[in-house]
Amino acid sequence: RSLSTAARSSLKIGLIPADGIGKEVIPAARTAIEALGSDIPKPEFIELLAGWETFTRYGVALPEETVKILRSDCDCALFGSVSSPSRKVIGYSSPIVALRKELDLYANIRPVVSVAPEAGQTPAVDLVVVRENTECLYVKQEEQIITENGKEARATRLITERASRRIGKMAFDLALERQRKHLTIIHKSNVLSVTDGLFRETVRKVHTFPDAEGKYDSVSVMEQLVDSAVYRLFREPEVFDVMVAPNLYGDILSDAAAALVGSLGLVPSVNAGDDFVMGEPVHGSAPDIAGKGIANPIASIRSAALMLRRLGYTKGADRLDTAVDQVIREGTTLTPDLNGKSSTTEVLDAVLKKL
Amino acid sequence: RSLSTAARSSLKIGLIPADGIGKEVIPAARTAIEALGSDIPKPEFIELLAGWETFTRYGVALPEETVKILRSDCDCALFGSVSSPSRKVIGYSSPIVALRKELDLYANIRPVVSVAPEAGQTPAVDLVVVRENTECLYVKQEEQIITENGKEARATRLITERASRRIGKMAFDLALERQRKHLTIIHKSNVLSVTDGLFRETVRKVHTFPDAEGKYDSVSVMEQLVDSAVYRLFREPEVFDVMVAPNLYGDILSDAAAALVGSLGLVPSVNAGDDFVMGEPVHGSAPDIAGKGIANPIASIRSAALMLRRLGYTKGADRLDTAVDQVIREGTTLTPDLNGKSSTTEVLDAVLKKL
Ligand SMILES: CC(C)[C@H](C(=O)O)[C@@H](O)C(=O)O
Ligand SMILES: CC(C)[C@H](C(=O)O)[C@@H](O)C(=O)O
Repeated sequence: RSLSTAARSSLKIGLIPADGIGKEVIPAARTAIEALGSDIPKPEFIELLAGWETFTRYGVALPEETVKILRSDCDCALFGSVSSPSRKVIGYSSPIVALRKELDLYANIRPVVSVAPEAGQTPAVDLVVVRENTECLYVKQEEQIITENGKEARATRLITERASRRIGKMAFDLALERQRKHLTIIHKSNVLSVTDGLFRETVRKVHTFPDAEGKYDSVSVMEQLVDSAVYRLFREPEVFDVMVAPNLYGDILSDAAAALVGSLGLVPSVNAGDDFVMGEPVHGSAPDIAGKGIANPIASIRSAALMLRRLGYTKGADRLDTAVDQVIREGTTLTPDLNGKSSTTEVLDAVLKKL
Repeated sequence: RSLSTAARSSLKIGLIPADGIGKEVIPAARTAIEALGSDIPKPEFIELLAGWETFTRYGVALPEETVKILRSDCDCALFGSVSSPSRKVIGYSSPIVALRKELDLYANIRPVVSVAPEAGQTPAVDLVVVRENTECLYVKQEEQIITENGKEARATRLITERASRRIGKMAFDLALERQRKHLTIIHKSNVLSVTDGLFRETVRKVHTFPDAEGKYDSVSVMEQLVDSAVYRLFREPEVFDVMVAPNLYGDILSDAAAALVGSLGLVPSVNAGDDFVMGEPVHGSAPDIAGKGIANPIASIRSAALMLRRLGYTKGADRLDTAVDQVIREGTTLTPDLNGKSSTTEVLDAVLKKL
């Protein structure tokens, strides 16, 4: 299996709606993909289980079957969103974090763009957060001991040269494709001089790595401490083009950027590895609105577009993105997160009409 | 030595301007304190060294002498800001992080308030970030090894019941003093179930701890994942009153909140322990504007006010805060960070005139 489009007569897409509004927006993305007709190979969808509800039913958040089928039968996948228990539950562990690791989807690519500044979006936001997706505090190596002063818990934050180099390459490659070709390395090396020091230096080295053979010469590189980065993101988002960050900083930064464009309901992502890609809206399972039919399907439709683009189906991806842009700009058919009154289905229909 | 105001004939204040604009704003805060006259005991200032410049000169970022004098001769202190080397430098380690630990200043209290919404501030921001100040990734236990796949670096994130309980108490106490009495616990326990699980549960327990004897019953408690918290901070800052967070999340959140009120140059903090308090502006050393005489002194003057308030000198603190509020509201004498044209000295003079 590979990411190449060659010789694919059908496109096998794993669908993992998981919890909450994931069950509403992933089916919408499916319908949008189906509407692309001959721009992509005939899609075949394989519904797969994961999530908190799966855990409460079957005692496992990420069934082995799901991973196995993704690995052996799917060309790509779409993941919805997971709910978390409100208290620690023995044996439960986030399936999305596990999936990213299992499939070695080492990059989480999150473009954030203001399409319609007049609709309350900060103008001039056009950036992509490239988040390392397999390590940092997400290795989940934690332990707790009891001392005479009470409980003490420790977590390990892992940063490796290997993972920093490959996410660095991914970020430079993305920067190259963009008009501004500007990369900001996010870290906190004034405190974490060893771990973030390694991240920052390894990413910097990609720039001039002999392997690169001058490929990245046109990319300009800046650095920014994560706290200042969040500050500047709100004050002058136009300074950022591609931001590359260790896992947790990337998580926080992409939510921060999402706030600038009006809603998390607009922001897509792909979890990308060297031979698999999984689209995933950046928003969560939104238990407060789940089941009401008013979740914004745009983040999922855009995630599908990102996924298709990465697989080489540029035309299909462009069609989805253009249709979504038009619906946002028109501003007449929007879900409540964007101060609209439309339902998930109505927004989906509006997108389908523009295709 | 204690935080009580009793029997103090003079107030001994350690001054650690450190690097960059710290050397401009800390003297301004000093002048403002001196102008308070009989509202506080006669201030005596003791200038102390720390910072990157101190390191380059004397080979040590935080001289023992500085810590010793703070401990034995000072009632309180004001710290400016430190510069960081742009590459890892052997032997250099952030003096502010070290000072917080040395003096057991376990709480970093950062109030963020929009005083003048018409001046580009988001209205309805009136919150205080209560940041744990001694542990989390700031324990700086890091190591690097070389494997066959290259370098691997690890950092330890420490969360203890003891530190979580005392920061929790501090946060509940602050919430009690406020009109809304609302506390939000920030964590990421969907990933860090052990460390952030311990933080969240320990803080929650403070609410109903038998020791508290119902003291905190009037405080309402909410929880928020750190990524969503940053998102909501920008979308609906009015939902937050007191936010209590582990060290790194608190660092990021306070910069995020500062962006809402127009400038980091407005946001003060105190590093508070049970028997010492050190004011510190939230901004950094700002090498780009250092030496130009245009740094905003307000964050430092407000930090002095916070420090005095914690020492029990409410009247002096109120006078400083009221004067600063007036200057911001008038909007005629502001530094460039607030789109003004005034210098540090001009803003200081404007504040002094209102005292
Ligand atoms: C659900 C959670 C584990 C996840 C993360 O932290 O990665 C989410 O916040 C995201 O950004 O995809
Ligand atoms: C200078 C740095 C070590 C410090 C921190 O991270 O605590 C700063 O960002 C702050 O917020 O006081």
